Amino acid sequence: MSEVSISDYLLTHLQRGGPVPMNRQLYALLRDGILNRAIQPGLQVPPTRALAADLGVSRNTVTYAYDQLIAEGYLEARTGDGTYVADTEPNMARLSAAAPARPKATRSAAGTTVARMASGTVAGGVARGATTGSAADDAVGAAIDSGAGSALSSRGARLLSGTGASSAQWGAFMPGIPDITRFPHAVWSKLQARHWRRIAPALLTYGDGAGYPPLREAIAGHLRTARAVNCTADQVIVTSGTHQSIQLAATLLGEAGDTAWVEDPCYWGTRNVIRSSGLTPLPLPVDAEGMQLPEEALRTPPRFIFVTPSHQYPLGPVMSLARRRLLLEYAARHNVWVVEDDYDSEFRYSGPPLASLQGLDSNERVIYLGTFSKTLFPGLRIGFMVVPAALAPRFARANAELFRDGQSFLHAVLADFINEGHFSSHVRKMRQLYAERLACLQAAIRVELGDTATISGSDAGLHLALGLPAGTNDVAISQAARERGILTRPLSAYYADPANAKPGLMLGYAAVPTENIPMLFAELAKDIRAQVNVCA
Amino acid sequence: MSEVSISDYLLTHLQRGGPVPMNRQLYALLRDGILNRAIQPGLQVPPTRALAADLGVSRNTVTYAYDQLIAEGYLEARTGDGTYVADTEPNMARLSAAAPARPKATRSAAGTTVARMASGTVAGGVARGATTGSAADDAVGAAIDSGAGSALSSRGARLLSGTGASSAQWGAFMPGIPDITRFPHAVWSKLQARHWRRIAPALLTYGDGAGYPPLREAIAGHLRTARAVNCTADQVIVTSGTHQSIQLAATLLGEAGDTAWVEDPCYWGTRNVIRSSGLTPLPLPVDAEGMQLPEEALRTPPRFIFVTPSHQYPLGPVMSLARRRLLLEYAARHNVWVVEDDYDSEFRYSGPPLASLQGLDSNERVIYLGTFSKTLFPGLRIGFMVVPAALAPRFARANAELFRDGQSFLHAVLADFINEGHFSSHVRKMRQLYAERLACLQAAIRVELGDTATISGSDAGLHLALGLPAGTNDVAISQAARERGILTRPLSAYYADPANAKPGLMLGYAAVPTENIPMLFAELAKDIRAQVNVCA
Repeated sequence: MSEVSISDYLLTHLQRGGPVPMNRQLYALLRDGILNRAIQPGLQVPPTRALAADLGVSRNTVTYAYDQLIAEGYLEARTGDGTYVADTEPNMARLSAAAPARPKATRSAAGTTVARMASGTVAGGVARGATTGSAADDAVGAAIDSGAGSALSSRGARLLSGTGASSAQWGAFMPGIPDITRFPHAVWSKLQARHWRRIAPALLTYGDGAGYPPLREAIAGHLRTARAVNCTADQVIVTSGTHQSIQLAATLLGEAGDTAWVEDPCYWGTRNVIRSSGLTPLPLPVDAEGMQLPEEALRTPPRFIFVTPSHQYPLGPVMSLARRRLLLEYAARHNVWVVEDDYDSEFRYSGPPLASLQGLDSNERVIYLGTFSKTLFPGLRIGFMVVPAALAPRFARANAELFRDGQSFLHAVLADFINEGHFSSHVRKMRQLYAERLACLQAAIRVELGDTATISGSDAGLHLALGLPAGTNDVAISQAARERGILTRPLSAYYADPANAKPGLMLGYAAVPTENIPMLFAELAKDIRAQVNVCA
Repeated sequence: MSEVSISDYLLTHLQRGGPVPMNRQLYALLRDGILNRAIQPGLQVPPTRALAADLGVSRNTVTYAYDQLIAEGYLEARTGDGTYVADTEPNMARLSAAAPARPKATRSAAGTTVARMASGTVAGGVARGATTGSAADDAVGAAIDSGAGSALSSRGARLLSGTGASSAQWGAFMPGIPDITRFPHAVWSKLQARHWRRIAPALLTYGDGAGYPPLREAIAGHLRTARAVNCTADQVIVTSGTHQSIQLAATLLGEAGDTAWVEDPCYWGTRNVIRSSGLTPLPLPVDAEGMQLPEEALRTPPRFIFVTPSHQYPLGPVMSLARRRLLLEYAARHNVWVVEDDYDSEFRYSGPPLASLQGLDSNERVIYLGTFSKTLFPGLRIGFMVVPAALAPRFARANAELFRDGQSFLHAVLADFINEGHFSSHVRKMRQLYAERLACLQAAIRVELGDTATISGSDAGLHLALGLPAGTNDVAISQAARERGILTRPLSAYYADPANAKPGLMLGYAAVPTENIPMLFAELAKDIRAQVNVCA
């Protein structure tokens, strides 16, 4: 293409009177012409005045396009000479100096892994593939198997294959969700407005890794009185939730490849984050006293033990004192870190609140995790951890290094909310409300299912586990219910080892209006009866 | 101890008239007595009525303590018989069935690693240990070496040893911080109040992994016009910032052990997160055209290439078009992922804004990262990524699985802020303000240092890189300045390979009131002159 033909090329392609301004069109046409070699490197482009005349546009229009193309390196202005097309074409010789491209087969290994996992045959704690309210409930799960997902790493494919976050996060009987419609949003909004009226720069910049100091004080105060946690504010690290807390502990205290004992069944997020932090989860079965500690496991101390001692997730038992003492003694002897996930103990309906495991430990082996997701609202994304005093500055620093913390403006509002008594008053009210809803759900279960189903985990929290007769297809129930608009999670999906899996449903009651519970559970019971021979 | 002596024991230890209520004291004394074997398992405790009489307290007081101890498993109530101390002592035989405790030496290997790193002798991109405004600026760095940090994993110790987050985040000349005092907080507060007046439950519960849809729309719109990013809202994933974006991409698309090319020097956070995601960073030197692509490196394609093509961090060059085209062609041929970190391109002071690398890519190999930390305020913790359309649902899901996203209540405010024009108006105003401050700082540098220092990276962003003569101890300057209350970061600390490191200072000017710049830089110049022979 010559200088003249550049004018012709542009005259042919410019769309006059269209939506795109002439200067942007000119820029784009020249750029694309250069990129696709229609306009060759080294060619001199017409002077702005001449091109403007040829095209019948203002000279400014051409200047704009040339300036942009010069700034981006498509054109080169040579002083006193003119403007030329720069030579920016990739040197093919350099490219082919590289090793041959990775064969596609290597990348699709991920697909194979997924297939193996879906069949439930991988050892060591892989969640079952087919679940409702998770991977299988939207198009993603299917797409992974289709080969379109072959771009994923095998660890990425594995992450997406398990039980996990649901695409629906609000509705009966979604477990783990508090009644956010009761959250005192007017109070929150008032406290928020107070801070924003004259917001301090310190509340808007990066955090120091540990969280806003008054919030750390408020959390420590709450934990000492409500959870018998043995701590000062210096030991509190504010995080964006339990996932981040787990990752921080795993990275800072564990090497890639270290073993972490987890409960079987357990929270899917714990398993996901542990694995993505490079640890190897070893699932240990749960009984009425919490995580079992079989001789065989005890012979090889892990680096971490992850437990939910106050309200085992998802089944609900409280870890017995004997097992707590054994666990702590074992951890002290073998330098094991015990990670206590105390996610919903503020809501306890029968008997007095139970002290945390951390409060029983005298050897600084426990990392205590908590969250405001259940007490306030999940979308807040504020959790916290209590770590041994000597480690706290390191956790703070690692938190800043890994996650670049901030949101002190939100921490400040929460600190006021706690310090002015709104937190404890809200928890008190919700405890009463949820107890009422729990009782209503228990009654509905008895009415609909009689003795066919067992109820566990109903002493505390926001959900109960409904056990169904052995052999029941809980995944099918959950899927059928979902089609009626009722959200549950199949219990079997929480197990790492399909051989241990017991069927049932996780039912959250906290966010369901009391008066709707009987009718909604009656609906769900239809799907249960379709799978189980109910003797009511 | 007998039943009678339990009364005696309690009578001896109860503190009457003290701050702790009698029922809590009674609970704690019995619990501690059981835990330390002063009160033996199997012993029957006195009936509540008898003990209350012995101690001269109300029967309710004793009942409270017993109930709590029964609930927590210290005591057992045997129906029709009485209450006994439960046997909860760890079975020592079970404990000693375990392998001998990990020798302490294994754990302190971390200390050795740190020492090796501080000396800068580890190959493959370890940041230098001694830096100002980072590890060395508080007690943490020192404590790590002291052995108190031996509880850390070697990867944890390594994370804490590098250049990184500063404990001070606000003040002249801290790089990377916008002027948050100019943030239109009244507007933000008004938008916030509007949402909170009647907050929708969907804004308070967990997210769906991709972010609040109207915010994704708003971001896509901004990126298409301002950054020439080729995308729709479906490709936008909202994250809590660039650290999370990097971790997500690394986990989903890379295997542990995969190589990632990074610029040398580069942002410390990129290196930290890459490494903690299990990737191995390979630093490639930077010149005036951005990241160099030496033949030797090209021969072995990595899995990822991390670049800052619009404004190389920290030195500032724009990646040339020739190198952009080579990079994209190479990535397409070898299935490499290019991660474009476009952290501060909204602020460009000379010439037209430059198009993103993503917009030039026609093979869907680019993952584009952006953030509101520089345009609005860092503490907001909202960033975003643009991923190929086919991968977007997987990224959303992985985001939910790994990080349990939420904060739609905040996303909604930001979406309004953008859609109602406040975002672009704020960026426009700040661009003008920062340009003025930049000019002022450049003038001050000339006045104080003449030609002794070079300035780079001043075409865009919130900071410039001040180059100092070879051999200058920039760490010493930075430390001395810090004692005067002036924050800078030594340039040499950003290099992975000490052999390449060039001395200098990173100077953020955006958040420094214009009128203070000459005086503050004059102060800093004293510390520079103490290390450099200035020919002004």
